[in-house]
Amino acid sequence: MARNGKLSTDPYKGVRDFYPKEQALQQHLFSIMRQVAQSAGYEEYSASLLEPAELYRAKGSENEEIATQQTYTFLDRGDREVTLRPEMTPTVARMVAARRRDLSFPLRWYSIPNVFRYERPQRGRVREHWQLNIDLFGSEHIAADAEIILLAHTLMRAFGATENDFEIRISSRGFLNGLITQHSLSEESTKKLHGLLDRHGKVSSQEEEASLKEIGISPQEFVASVAPKDVVELLTTLKELGCSNARFEPYIVRGFDYYTGLVFEVYDTHPDNNRSLFGGGRYDNLMELFGEETMPAVGFGMGDVTIRDFLEVRSLTPSYTSPIKVYLAVTGEDMVTEAMKIASRLRAQGISAAVDLGDKKLGEQIKSADKKGIPHLIVIGRNEIDSGMVAIRTLATGEEEKIALTSLPSFLKSF
Amino acid sequence: MARNGKLSTDPYKGVRDFYPKEQALQQHLFSIMRQVAQSAGYEEYSASLLEPAELYRAKGSENEEIATQQTYTFLDRGDREVTLRPEMTPTVARMVAARRRDLSFPLRWYSIPNVFRYERPQRGRVREHWQLNIDLFGSEHIAADAEIILLAHTLMRAFGATENDFEIRISSRGFLNGLITQHSLSEESTKKLHGLLDRHGKVSSQEEEASLKEIGISPQEFVASVAPKDVVELLTTLKELGCSNARFEPYIVRGFDYYTGLVFEVYDTHPDNNRSLFGGGRYDNLMELFGEETMPAVGFGMGDVTIRDFLEVRSLTPSYTSPIKVYLAVTGEDMVTEAMKIASRLRAQGISAAVDLGDKKLGEQIKSADKKGIPHLIVIGRNEIDSGMVAIRTLATGEEEKIALTSLPSFLKSF
Repeated sequence: MARNGKLSTDPYKGVRDFYPKEQALQQHLFSIMRQVAQSAGYEEYSASLLEPAELYRAKGSENEEIATQQTYTFLDRGDREVTLRPEMTPTVARMVAARRRDLSFPLRWYSIPNVFRYERPQRGRVREHWQLNIDLFGSEHIAADAEIILLAHTLMRAFGATENDFEIRISSRGFLNGLITQHSLSEESTKKLHGLLDRHGKVSSQEEEASLKEIGISPQEFVASVAPKDVVELLTTLKELGCSNARFEPYIVRGFDYYTGLVFEVYDTHPDNNRSLFGGGRYDNLMELFGEETMPAVGFGMGDVTIRDFLEVRSLTPSYTSPIKVYLAVTGEDMVTEAMKIASRLRAQGISAAVDLGDKKLGEQIKSADKKGIPHLIVIGRNEIDSGMVAIRTLATGEEEKIALTSLPSFLKSF
Repeated sequence: MARNGKLSTDPYKGVRDFYPKEQALQQHLFSIMRQVAQSAGYEEYSASLLEPAELYRAKGSENEEIATQQTYTFLDRGDREVTLRPEMTPTVARMVAARRRDLSFPLRWYSIPNVFRYERPQRGRVREHWQLNIDLFGSEHIAADAEIILLAHTLMRAFGATENDFEIRISSRGFLNGLITQHSLSEESTKKLHGLLDRHGKVSSQEEEASLKEIGISPQEFVASVAPKDVVELLTTLKELGCSNARFEPYIVRGFDYYTGLVFEVYDTHPDNNRSLFGGGRYDNLMELFGEETMPAVGFGMGDVTIRDFLEVRSLTPSYTSPIKVYLAVTGEDMVTEAMKIASRLRAQGISAAVDLGDKKLGEQIKSADKKGIPHLIVIGRNEIDSGMVAIRTLATGEEEKIALTSLPSFLKSF
């Protein structure tokens, strides 16, 4: 809001500014995501965050509520209804459907898009967040589900988490559908059951029990439930491939109704924060929206905000280091061009260097470099240029060493 | 649009889908941008593309036209007016103003945001594009202008362009202001002059001459114009620092009115495409919008679409290479878990590997790997697991070599 005719410096409500330290952390997350995905043979794709609104309005979808109440949807100047994507799955399904005949399967794709939800900002719930999306198209085998869940596991490990820090809880639409058929549940009761399971852990067990009974299901059917065949097979494969912290959990349903098979969620095991970090599952029918034949697909989405919280609580985020290796302070404005020439030679050797432009006194220049966390500093003055010798200072310790300008690159590379 | 009740697979009008090949090229551009910026001591920042609409409605700004006619601006569900940023400069000014007292100067920042314009889609003019923004805050010295222009030069060189491929044309608001004072131009005539210079090269010289005369300026004042002092000093510094393709060009004004000093544009020298690729300049007064004291600032923005066109015309874009180094085909579904174990071990050694999930016949699997451009392939079957020996095939040549599974990592690393 404007104060006294001046503009506010606040960002738009519910979104984040990324100053260099926050951006470095963001890039750290993205870089691990990219590394893990690419190593497993996934190719990166991307798309605009602007999508035709109808993409989120599939008939009968539970997403309808999200589409109509929680998205950013508006008319453009040409009266087209546009939505800022609230999730990436419809987009990736659209892109695969568009080139289905040219793509070769199994198709492994990932992306790290920003997604938007219009909701009340609160901890872990911002209006814009970034979300790694990993999807595997074209295989209906359990091995595909296993690969996707293993990727989630590998990612968590790559972030520095141990198997004790998180747990993978798996269920299957088959289990739920079994219950529905067995009890001949009406559409209404089915919806109720879905909602109830989705709120599991957030309502008291008494309340849950009462609601289950209302639908006609005994709570024992959950407690004593045996893992369905597909989940058992999946758990066996996962174990064989080195993932030991997965288990069957009948309460897992996932909010979206496009899941058709296995569903899973990765839970934080921290006693104070026993919540779902992210999840995914199999969605074999999404291509039908585009008039295409069904296409087996399995994937997950991992949000930056929840992962950041998870890592910060465990001190697993790296501390910020300046991308600048050496700062060239100057004795005066007249030395800036000389300093810039030296910096140029350092950069040609792959050393990141920044030059002070002589707007402040030397003492202030040094303070400023220290504040930025730059490790090394040299002062460039007439003497240094004439003698070809500089004193290189390690800012953390204040130690200085005299070296020839020509040895500067090799000296700095040794750090 | 929906056909027969089915959703279209087209993206929203005027935006692009990035399939893996296009995304790889995009990441290639971004990676060079990051490398050059970081090497010169610039830190990355970022922000949401959602901004309060008022940020683009500074009074009397020529941007007003852009703000009111060419932006995506809408009301959110809480009746806040939101704009999808059409450019990054107001955002970076906002962020610097917000933490001015905590930041240390000179401040070097860069970002690669997507920006939005509601305009008729055409070649090089899409509704969403990405734009490297590089800004240097806190120095009013010519050295700062020189550093920014040198960065533009270094970037072009890093993309593979020679000094003959482009030219840097520089002018100064000082030159223009001199003309305005000398001729005591009214505000209206000043605006006309601005517009005229901005269209230079797009209208006939006769037309331009006539319009200049109307304002009361003789075309000779441009043709015979001598570079102002600041431009001369800048050109000298640039030459000293290895940039030989810059020159004074009085017609350069830049569309935005927030520039206060030197302005520059990088031109394509290709005879068929002699147009501005990107540009920037000095804008010292932008902090005032936020009620802050003036702050010297200089920077530029480089768009992905124009640079891609420039590089494609000169065959300077790299050809796509699959991020996957080896494909593990399987003789049957029963071998997938074994193949996944081998892939796991390869990944632990930093080798990207993808496993076929056995949904297709072996021949089809090999075809699919070849189509994806994956360089190597091995077939995993019962024999291979039992003997510990595999045949590794180079798909481009069809050559095969028998090696032990245990030697696979070192073999693949040799490529």
